[in-house]
Parts: sequence; structure tokens; C-alpha cells
Amino acid sequence: MPRVANGSIGVGLLGAGVVGSEVARALLCPSSPHFKSAGLTLRRILVREVRRKRTGIASELFTDDAEAVLADRETMIVVEAIGGEEPARSYISTALSMGKHVVTANKEVLAKHGDELTRTATANGVELSYEASVGGGIPVLAVLKDSLGGNQIDTIRAIINGTTNYILTSMDHTGASFDASLLEAQRLGFAESDPTADVGGYDAVYKLAILARLAWGRSLAIDTIYREGIEGIESKDLRYARELGFRVKLMAMATEQPAGLRCRVHPALVPADVPMASVNGVLNAVEFNGDRVGPLWLQGRGAGSGPTASAVLGDVLRIARGMKAGRSLSKANAEIATAASSNCALSMDELEVRYYVRLSALDRSGVLAKIATVFGETQISIASVIQKDLDGTRGVADLVVMTHPARERDMQTAASRLRDLDVVSSLDNLIRVEDYEPLPSS
Amino acid sequence: MPRVANGSIGVGLLGAGVVGSEVARALLCPSSPHFKSAGLTLRRILVREVRRKRTGIASELFTDDAEAVLADRETMIVVEAIGGEEPARSYISTALSMGKHVVTANKEVLAKHGDELTRTATANGVELSYEASVGGGIPVLAVLKDSLGGNQIDTIRAIINGTTNYILTSMDHTGASFDASLLEAQRLGFAESDPTADVGGYDAVYKLAILARLAWGRSLAIDTIYREGIEGIESKDLRYARELGFRVKLMAMATEQPAGLRCRVHPALVPADVPMASVNGVLNAVEFNGDRVGPLWLQGRGAGSGPTASAVLGDVLRIARGMKAGRSLSKANAEIATAASSNCALSMDELEVRYYVRLSALDRSGVLAKIATVFGETQISIASVIQKDLDGTRGVADLVVMTHPARERDMQTAASRLRDLDVVSSLDNLIRVEDYEPLPSS
Repeated sequence: MPRVANGSIGVGLLGAGVVGSEVARALLCPSSPHFKSAGLTLRRILVREVRRKRTGIASELFTDDAEAVLADRETMIVVEAIGGEEPARSYISTALSMGKHVVTANKEVLAKHGDELTRTATANGVELSYEASVGGGIPVLAVLKDSLGGNQIDTIRAIINGTTNYILTSMDHTGASFDASLLEAQRLGFAESDPTADVGGYDAVYKLAILARLAWGRSLAIDTIYREGIEGIESKDLRYARELGFRVKLMAMATEQPAGLRCRVHPALVPADVPMASVNGVLNAVEFNGDRVGPLWLQGRGAGSGPTASAVLGDVLRIARGMKAGRSLSKANAEIATAASSNCALSMDELEVRYYVRLSALDRSGVLAKIATVFGETQISIASVIQKDLDGTRGVADLVVMTHPARERDMQTAASRLRDLDVVSSLDNLIRVEDYEPLPSS
Repeated sequence: MPRVANGSIGVGLLGAGVVGSEVARALLCPSSPHFKSAGLTLRRILVREVRRKRTGIASELFTDDAEAVLADRETMIVVEAIGGEEPARSYISTALSMGKHVVTANKEVLAKHGDELTRTATANGVELSYEASVGGGIPVLAVLKDSLGGNQIDTIRAIINGTTNYILTSMDHTGASFDASLLEAQRLGFAESDPTADVGGYDAVYKLAILARLAWGRSLAIDTIYREGIEGIESKDLRYARELGFRVKLMAMATEQPAGLRCRVHPALVPADVPMASVNGVLNAVEFNGDRVGPLWLQGRGAGSGPTASAVLGDVLRIARGMKAGRSLSKANAEIATAASSNCALSMDELEVRYYVRLSALDRSGVLAKIATVFGETQISIASVIQKDLDGTRGVADLVVMTHPARERDMQTAASRLRDLDVVSSLDNLIRVEDYEPLPSS
């Protein structure tokens, strides 16, 4: 277990990409009063090309030998900023095993090896910190774990994927298609070349699982969390939603129910006049609802080198302060970690929300009656029906049905029967409404 | 210095009012996973009437002997929830001197004796924590001190007084007068019977000073911070502001300038379409702008027993975790505390903002020319002038002038000359515009 010998805490850095360089500069040239007094020394930086110049970082700090960073006796905190699964996972594991604290923003490693690495950290009396992995620069984990520790959390609602929020915002503002908006996001560096993890909602699911674990001390089996991406959203959905007074957002939500946790990630219609509807572009926002604090809202940049470095540096600072005070391990965290057991998220069947249903239906008399009959027979009450975008040549029009609150199970039955109707050429979208209570004014 | 002996950390509570009772119940009956694992034991509660029953709290915990709480050997954390200056200050001081950590939300004691008590804490190797003193349940201090520790903060903008925000919101929504809205706020318990500290902006100034100290490590002499309350705001100002596309908020703002810190608390016109304008009722909101994280926005309940207890419990939890890990004192904090020196806030003279100026002027030809001449001669460019609410019998009308950005010094000169004009019966209000950049979407 690392201890502070001479009053200075050595930091080893793995990687000098955009985040790594930002972290390095902050350590070499601390600007905040908190960092100045933290007594941190950047020891070595692992890079692939030691000869490449990086502005503001002396070249003698660079090494291409991982051992030189990981085995350095003075290094007590290792910051992993390489990204990707390997060799990042091995380096993190080695550092923890050597009794060094590790700070990382590596979602892939956390997603695939988080439990194992947490055990390694606990066994070696060190911390594995990863604030940057959820919400970029927004300190969601610290707030949830520390500041809201005296609350029973009942709900978490969040926009925690910047890529999808950028794409949806862009589609909404420009009327562009999903494909065009995705290409634009890729061009601007807001989406990966393989965008599946983001647009498919996988990234948001993983982050939601981290939040649920900290809020309720329960580790959820990832594949039991309901997940739906934004690939099926068309710009006309955004347009219709807007006409109905909504925006469409990829929401990550968790609620504690008597029977367990209901966790879900899916596109949702959010009322246009609540704060969540105004979270645009790559911004992230998280709302916690606690029994004592009430609703607490955090909003900021969810991605990018600056915000990520900010979160990494916050973790480094917290660990350094604990070390200077002779603190060995955040035992309470360890207890949470070990108390957590694998749980299944509740099924969606009992969810009761309003639905937006978009159908392509024949433009002929009696069609609405047939559709309304399906809703009626499945116990779903229709709030409004509007006909849109009649395609005269095909004789087909968009029909947008808004329901009153209905059970998911019934809605799925209705959807399946609607698809079978001869007057319905396709059921194009089914989007849940998140009847989002605005923050009360008192 | 208190250490954990048997794995349980004793907590002593001073006061069992609304906040104290809430804290007691949370300790007796922990609901969150974090609190369950923290190993806290509520030892004694100091009350005036030991015989009064309090729901959910066993009567044998009560004592009317402060010594029984403060001198208890097993008590390592003392929560002060009495409020008021004395005996709260003495109890806090005694507890710190006896080597016990203290958690408090007592703004009055912190305002008047914060420096002295911080020194006592540092000298005794214990912590004095007061998250609840700023922003109620919003963890502004923890976020600023810990999570944003790797940032150079350039701006803080906040609504941090719930009373004034409630009054302004109520005036705006109902058209009621300041006096009527204040009475209503008092009736609802949102304002004290002597409301001076809140409506005069003193409370916000003190909170801003705490924020500035944590953000920049500089202790500001309170009386050098510019302060203006909301007593002079009339409902017609809110109405005119609304017509011009603004809301009026009591803003607390601090910016780092090359020459020092510009800190100010005053009513401001905030553009209606930015998030700050939608912070209504007793809600509080704080926006930090850091060099790495960018803008970070926190919003929640700024007052009330639940949010206050939430913040108090967060502090208790953080201290307990540190103690369980053998941590003695947050040394980094102590360094910040001792590094802080007394500074003066910058004068307002060089501030450059737009102004809203409301005059009562004679309704006759040539009046506007005279008024415009004053603005012109003081180098202030007028953006718009509108005439309002003509009082035919007195021959006087409201004239609302919006300026382009101008220097405070020039504006004050203009104001003084306007008051001297024979065609101006009074200069009724001068409100600065906060040209608030919305959170960027990327």
C-alpha cells in the first residue's frame, strides 16, 4: 500500500493522447489552488513514440517502457489514459496489484473487467476511480456516492450519451436524416467510426448500471437492462413530437420499485418545457431524486478532452488528499462494492407510460375504426390521432396515435396486432413518453 | 484526535428541530446503502425539553446537558443543528477543541466566527464541515473543492438565496408588490420575520465569499463585495423586463480578473431563454465555469429541512469514511484555509454591462432630448427607449432606457446627472443586465 514518504506523491501516466496530455499539463503546471497544494509530481509518461514533441511537456518524461511507469517506486497513483481494452486492462491490473491507486476513464475496460479490477483494488488496499467514465466532466459519481449518501434515491433520469444527443439535436434542428446526422457527428469527432456502442444505447446502459450500483448498492446484470437505440428514429418523428409539444431524447432511467430496480435506456418523448428537453448537442444531464434532497439536477459537458481531464484530475486530487492524511483505502466504497450482488432489472411488462405510435396506414374510410378497435380491445385508451404526410400515389398516410397511460405488456400486444392489420402497411415507431415532472418551484 | 476504536463512530447531535430530527432519524434508521455501511451510532441529542416526544427518536437519547454530548468519549463527530450565534458558537468551539469533527449549517456562526473556528479545527487535527451552508442540498462546496479541483475557475454565477428568489418569482407571476410577496413568503416560512439578511443580499454575499474562497483560495473582506438587495424592485420592473425578454433575479457572481476578483450580488436582468431565468421559487442554481470542464450547472432545493439534512449527512458520511480509513484531517483543506489571505474585491467602477434604467419623466416635448444628451455626454449609448404607464393627472410617465454595454463609473455619473434634470421627477431603478451565455450545445 503506497504511503507518502517525502511529502510528494508521484503520478505515473499511461498515454499522452488528448486526455493524457491535458492531465500531464495540469500536473506540470497546476493552475487551481487545490492542485498547487496537493503536492503531486508527474514521474513518467508511457507513450508509443518517445521522440514526438508534445507542447508543454518535457521530453525526458516520456518512456515507451510500461515497466518504467508501473514499477517506479515513487509512483503511487497511475492514470490510465490509453483507452481500448488491451493493454490498458493489463496495465491497470498490474498497477493495482503493485499497490498503486488507479484513475481511469476507460469505459470498455470497466464494462468488461470492472468487477475483477475492483476486487484486485480492494485486495491490495488501493482505489480504482473512474468518475470520468460517466457524464464526462459532471461529477455524477462523487455526488451520488458522497454528497447524496444520506438519501434514499428513488429515481435517476439522465441524458448520458453525448453522441446520440448530438445526433438527435442535429436531426431536430436541421431536419436531416439519422444517417446524415451520424456522418456529421463522425466528421466532427462526436461519433466513433463504429458507432454501435453509442447509437445502439449500449454505452448508456453501461453508465446507467454504474449509477444504479452506486445509488442502490446492487450490481445489475447488464443484459437484463432494457435497451433501445436511436437508429429507428426518423426526422419526421422529431417533427411530429415537436408539434405535439415534445422533444425526443435518448433517456437512461432507473427507478426503485418494491420488486426491484426498473432500469431502461430508450428514446423518449420529453415535454418541451422541462429542463431535460433543453439539454442539447453533446451536453449531458443527470437528475437524481432523493428522499431528503428532492430533485437535484447536474448539467455539463459529457465528453471531450477538457471535461474528461477535469474528472480524472478530480479523482487524482481526492486520492492524493486521502494519502496525505494517511488514508489507505476508501473502505466504505469497498463495502459497497462487496455488498453489491448480481441482480436482474425488472422486466418492462408492468411499465405504465403514455405512448407515441406512428403507423403507415391506408388512406381510406374505416381504417381508423379498425385501428381504434385494436387499441380498445387491448385496454389502451387513445388520447389523440393525427394524420400526416399523405402519400397520394401509394394511398398511404402517417398516422400518429398518442395514448393515455398504458401497460407496456398491453402496448406490445397492441403493436403486434396492429402490424397484422390489412389496413396498416407498417408500424413505424413506438416511442414511450417520459412524463417528466419539472423541478418544483417550492 | 478521534480514532475509530470498535468500528463504530459515535455522533453527537446538538438540537432536534426540523433539521436535527431529520438527521437523527437518518442515523437511527439509515435508508441508503452508503449510510448503512458507514457504521455510525447516534449517541446523544442535546435538546431544551427532554420530555417532549419526537416521532421515531427514543427519548433516552435526549439530554439537556451539553457536556453529556460534547464530553462523551465515543462521540467523534458533533452535528450542530441549533442555529443562531450562541450557544452554537461556543459548542462548536468546545467540540473542535476536544478533538471532535464538527458538521454545521450555521451561516451566522460561520459568517462571524468562521476564520477562528477553522483555525481551532486545524490546530486540533479535525474537520469543520459546512456544505449545508451554501445551496442547501446542492453539493456546491464538495463539487468546487474536490471534483473541480483540477480546474482554474473563471466565473461563478448563482442564485443562492431562496427567499429573494421566491419573492421575485412570486412578484413576477402574480404581479404582487414586494411587500405583499414578502408577507406571503413569511407566512409560508420562506422568509424570516426580520428578512433583512435575505432581501438585503447579505446572505448571498456571505455565500459568495465562501464560494470565492474555495474557488480561488482567497478570503475576501465581506464589506468589499458589492451588495444590492431586492427591496427596490417593483412589480412594474418585472413586467417591463419581461416585455424586453428578461427576468429579474438576485444574482451572486464572481469573476477572476487580472487585477483581482470581481464579486457582486445584485438584482440583474437575465435573458428569458437561458436556464438561469427558469430557476424559480425557492430553487437555487450555481454555474461554475472551469478551464477544463467548461460550464457546469447544478440546480436543486436551496433550503428546507430535507435538503439541509441531506447536505449535513453528506458531510458526516465523508468524515466517517475518512476516519474509518484512519484519516486524521483533510490536510489539503487546511492548506487552502491557511493559504487564504484577506483580499478586497475589485471595485465596480470598471464593470462593463448593459443597463436597464427606469425614470419618471415629464410627458412633454424635448424631455427625451435632454435625457439622451446626458447619456451621450457620459459616453453611454442608448439601445432603446420605451415610454410606459403615463400618469395623465401628474403629467409623468415611466421611461425605460436600455443601454448598450457601458462602464459602471460612467453609468453612475449619468444616473446622478439624470436625477438633477428638471424634467426627471425620479430615477426609479437602475438594474444591470447579465448577458448570460447559455450552456453551449457543443
